[in-house]
Amino acid sequence: MLQTLPHALRVPDTLQILHECETPEVLLLHDVLAANIQAMQQRAVGQGLELWPHVKTHKCLEIARMQLHAGAAGLTASKPDEALIFLKAGLGPLLLAYPVLDPRKLDRVLKAAGPTRVLCILDSPEGAASLAAAAERHDRELEVCIKIDVGLGRCGLRPTDPALPHLARTVAELAPDNSSRHGLRLVGLLSHAGQAYGAADYQGVALVAEEERRLMLQARETVCQATQRPLPSLRLSVGSTPTVLAAPSYEGIDDIRPGNYVFLDRGALRLGLASSAEVALWVLARVVSGNKAHLIIDAGAKTLALDLGAQGSGDNDFGFGLAWQLSPNAGLEPLQVVRLSEEHGFVARPAHMDVPLGALLAVLPNHACPVANLAERFLVFGAPDGTTFWSVDARAKVR
Amino acid sequence: MLQTLPHALRVPDTLQILHECETPEVLLLHDVLAANIQAMQQRAVGQGLELWPHVKTHKCLEIARMQLHAGAAGLTASKPDEALIFLKAGLGPLLLAYPVLDPRKLDRVLKAAGPTRVLCILDSPEGAASLAAAAERHDRELEVCIKIDVGLGRCGLRPTDPALPHLARTVAELAPDNSSRHGLRLVGLLSHAGQAYGAADYQGVALVAEEERRLMLQARETVCQATQRPLPSLRLSVGSTPTVLAAPSYEGIDDIRPGNYVFLDRGALRLGLASSAEVALWVLARVVSGNKAHLIIDAGAKTLALDLGAQGSGDNDFGFGLAWQLSPNAGLEPLQVVRLSEEHGFVARPAHMDVPLGALLAVLPNHACPVANLAERFLVFGAPDGTTFWSVDARAKVR
Repeated sequence: MLQTLPHALRVPDTLQILHECETPEVLLLHDVLAANIQAMQQRAVGQGLELWPHVKTHKCLEIARMQLHAGAAGLTASKPDEALIFLKAGLGPLLLAYPVLDPRKLDRVLKAAGPTRVLCILDSPEGAASLAAAAERHDRELEVCIKIDVGLGRCGLRPTDPALPHLARTVAELAPDNSSRHGLRLVGLLSHAGQAYGAADYQGVALVAEEERRLMLQARETVCQATQRPLPSLRLSVGSTPTVLAAPSYEGIDDIRPGNYVFLDRGALRLGLASSAEVALWVLARVVSGNKAHLIIDAGAKTLALDLGAQGSGDNDFGFGLAWQLSPNAGLEPLQVVRLSEEHGFVARPAHMDVPLGALLAVLPNHACPVANLAERFLVFGAPDGTTFWSVDARAKVR
Repeated sequence: MLQTLPHALRVPDTLQILHECETPEVLLLHDVLAANIQAMQQRAVGQGLELWPHVKTHKCLEIARMQLHAGAAGLTASKPDEALIFLKAGLGPLLLAYPVLDPRKLDRVLKAAGPTRVLCILDSPEGAASLAAAAERHDRELEVCIKIDVGLGRCGLRPTDPALPHLARTVAELAPDNSSRHGLRLVGLLSHAGQAYGAADYQGVALVAEEERRLMLQARETVCQATQRPLPSLRLSVGSTPTVLAAPSYEGIDDIRPGNYVFLDRGALRLGLASSAEVALWVLARVVSGNKAHLIIDAGAKTLALDLGAQGSGDNDFGFGLAWQLSPNAGLEPLQVVRLSEEHGFVARPAHMDVPLGALLAVLPNHACPVANLAERFLVFGAPDGTTFWSVDARAKVR
């Protein structure tokens, strides 16, 4: 699919403002961001799903507030210290979608949560014991989900793993009893079909999504049987922007946890999930040097990240982004960011186009999530209170 | 070369302290760091060179102070806002080794510098004009170096480029004259043979270093002739840790600007430039999940970075780091970090070794510089005032 610079970045008034910016800068198009948030919320409502957007993409309180205001049921976070930023700002409910074993981290999260609802995940007896001990220390009930591996081969148990019914019974035995109010309450099963990022095309992603649904239904049958519960009494939560956008059916699914959909990126475009007009995050960079082969821009790996998509294992020829000169008379064909060093990007010099030193480019990155994590702030164009900066509040919160 | 876990990370007392850490954490071995700083300083002194260490590797005031205290002539920074962190702390002299065109950035740097000596680089008439205008605004003389491209194909002019003598004359004409005290003073030529990171081995790096030296001597002749100066009146400054460590000769060179040598990493080991005992930066991570193929650790691309070395274009089979279990009875053979998602690392599960959930690993990253830039702090083991944290003061300063 030929990608072109969206109209929003070709409006003369916009260009004038952007030409004032220092570079590199991570630009958010507020209208596109707001539309992406609305579209996903409508998709969820239309399918009778709860939306629990993953904040690891944006790590930004302002955006989390937009998502909750639009109707999200709660937020999903990865690491405990990432969750903490949102809990301390009073945002929630929050699903901590990482298998946490360290009691100090759980204590921080539960302390910061106060009365806010927090859900945790586990995929091992050690994880269950750690969460049960935290529930006991805080004298509370803790809602938990068991992580199911639907093919990524990362965390979670396979639906056919004999350890799954065993773990389900272990968790059931850690429920509060008549003598105590603390314990674990098993509320659902959770999956992330991250292998979808490695699919060849839209149809490939749809197949991954449908297989995820099938495996999750199977896992629920196993867990309900093992714990002698009625069948639909466990929620099924699935994640990833590609699978959510391409899923042919959500039958039996309760919750979705996409993250990247707020920004989208070249990865989503490659899979045919979106067009460049739906991309909210762009990197502004300037040409600072050049030679016969390359224009050298001031955005390198410390701004654009070295992500080739597909869980970091891509084709080197794919490059590190597409770039357009922000100029009324610039071409619509993208330039290729072919290489990055830490503070420099190498853009293949176009044959029939003169790009002068100082020229401003908009770069469509391969993967928006690491770009946000590297930035101190977003330049938000067209926010309700005018063009402004938002902090990337939870960047670098990896513990 | 077989790499083993250094002795420093096998001492029982050390292990006990490290086992208390939350993970992921970027660990610095203070003794190794101090020894690396001393060794490079001695190399410089022994060869009659000035050492201008590049701070983009560590972005840390404490480490810059160690370097200056050991005898460094000045610091090298990449982006202006990175330089600002060190200038505001009163550290310098400072070489701003990036072609800066934006007057706002130059104004910030010159204002923060006050009486501290600042040197800038340029590789175009536009760059010269921008620096001359800044010198005029601040009514000062500004020392500048012309950037020479010695084969990386990034910034700078090739020694044989007809634009080089032309640019040299342009700079000479911007010198202060009798009527004004502001202007540019051409003090040297500067190169970075970053292509050395892509060499096959030590001998390959040595060839790159020798070619860099030859090209720099040639460039100096051209520039001196064009500007009618006596021959050795321009300093020659070369950079990169690999070339500095492998150079067979420094004859005619005045200054070196290595950065990575303070930490070293798997990239340096691959080139035969160092052993693992000389690596000061390690990433501590724990096993949080697992399956038949992989141990899953809590350090992903947001901690270890996706750098494959060699300017980001490596062999995918190289993986993303080597890992050792920190346990008295663990094996000496490293485990392979084969894949990263944002917050998870995939370590190939060893065939004949049981690594339990919660096990602590030390990961040797491919490239230390982006790891430091992703971290909020270093855990410094064995610092003079005990084990402590240092801030990564200039992380994310990309403008």
